[in-house]
Amino acid sequence: MLSKTITKRITSLHLKKFRQQEQLFIAEGVKVVSELIAAGYFAEYLFTTAGTKQQFSAATLIDEAEMKRISALADASPVLAVFRIPKATSFKLDEITVVADGIRDPGNFGALIRLCDWFGVSQLLCAPDTVDLYNPKVVQASMGSMARVRVTYQDISNTIRTQPAPVYGAFMEGESVYNQVLETPCYLILGNEANGIRSETEESITKKISIPRYGKLQQTESLNVTTAAAIILAEMRRTSSGR
Amino acid sequence: MLSKTITKRITSLHLKKFRQQEQLFIAEGVKVVSELIAAGYFAEYLFTTAGTKQQFSAATLIDEAEMKRISALADASPVLAVFRIPKATSFKLDEITVVADGIRDPGNFGALIRLCDWFGVSQLLCAPDTVDLYNPKVVQASMGSMARVRVTYQDISNTIRTQPAPVYGAFMEGESVYNQVLETPCYLILGNEANGIRSETEESITKKISIPRYGKLQQTESLNVTTAAAIILAEMRRTSSGR
Repeated sequence: MLSKTITKRITSLHLKKFRQQEQLFIAEGVKVVSELIAAGYFAEYLFTTAGTKQQFSAATLIDEAEMKRISALADASPVLAVFRIPKATSFKLDEITVVADGIRDPGNFGALIRLCDWFGVSQLLCAPDTVDLYNPKVVQASMGSMARVRVTYQDISNTIRTQPAPVYGAFMEGESVYNQVLETPCYLILGNEANGIRSETEESITKKISIPRYGKLQQTESLNVTTAAAIILAEMRRTSSGR
Repeated sequence: MLSKTITKRITSLHLKKFRQQEQLFIAEGVKVVSELIAAGYFAEYLFTTAGTKQQFSAATLIDEAEMKRISALADASPVLAVFRIPKATSFKLDEITVVADGIRDPGNFGALIRLCDWFGVSQLLCAPDTVDLYNPKVVQASMGSMARVRVTYQDISNTIRTQPAPVYGAFMEGESVYNQVLETPCYLILGNEANGIRSETEESITKKISIPRYGKLQQTESLNVTTAAAIILAEMRRTSSGR
């Protein structure tokens, strides 16, 4: 049975403040937990319900009601781990650096990390107000890809100033992504869901690019930030590999 | 002031059961509500807080606490409308039909509708267990694009049998999307977030396609369903327009 102290300690990690204080975070779900263990993350606690006890033999068995109590998600998973937050690495210019200028939605941010991993982008630079990497919903949506993508939170403009490279940003009025070869190393800036790219970040951009819309009658004003990133990264990889 | 009866009637619409019973749904946010009004959706109720009263002059002014009480979202917007659900249209084979085989996440589904709109895909066929189009989070994530994309819920295999066309599905072991010209009219099947495309749906697929991953060392097993759809639709439109 889970003690009150442990239950309280784990549920406190639903909040960023306590994650930072304790340097711990929650990961839920068989795939995510397995991948993080395989990647060498250190599990402070590991809990499982009966169904996955065999797979996680070292885990503490708890019942579903207890799991529900410590879970940070709407639907509790059969396995939950509390991992130590690894030491932050410092930012170093890479082939492609994806830049998140204040993305707020955990699902979007997790999908973006997964997308970076898919396309071999190993670095994500985030404005300090971007959603926390260790938010349980981000951890879940990243599906383990967070183990392979370095995520740094620091001032965007300042970072670009000290480690310069071409800076691309997606805008409605930009030039079609299909009419140019994107250089590397480079930065690719993605804006916040509601407000797009901030004006102080926009000043760093050396080339505005856009994704052609299809059909003149469409009134869509923008794409979801992660879908836009998907199309641009796929195109960068397609042209660079001569497909 | 909002009466108890109205408050109760509106909050009941947070649930699919009551949306279907009353044939009403909630839309929140300035952009979404404006677009649906412009598209001719009939507002049964329209509420605004002081900040946007000028823009929605016909709306009933309520205070922020009241708005929070009726809102279905974690962060209430300054405007909320209750619209009548338009009459369902019947499915008719179109140039490209995107097929959702049981997508569950409202954010993913809303982003998919927005993506279809962007690429001029006017029809989305959904397995009956796909998340409800009128779920308030889907409405919000679709950003008004739901007014321009027909969404039908019915048996997928049966529909394809009666209105046949080439059927594409994204799989890890499929052929690269860059090595082929996708024919139209066609169906493009997207699977559920956790379980992918169901085996009974898979039987309808005439061609398995895949998105090339970059870098051999990556262990990512899949892309988020909406990002995968984004890359495939962008590629269909790029090749068909000779970009």
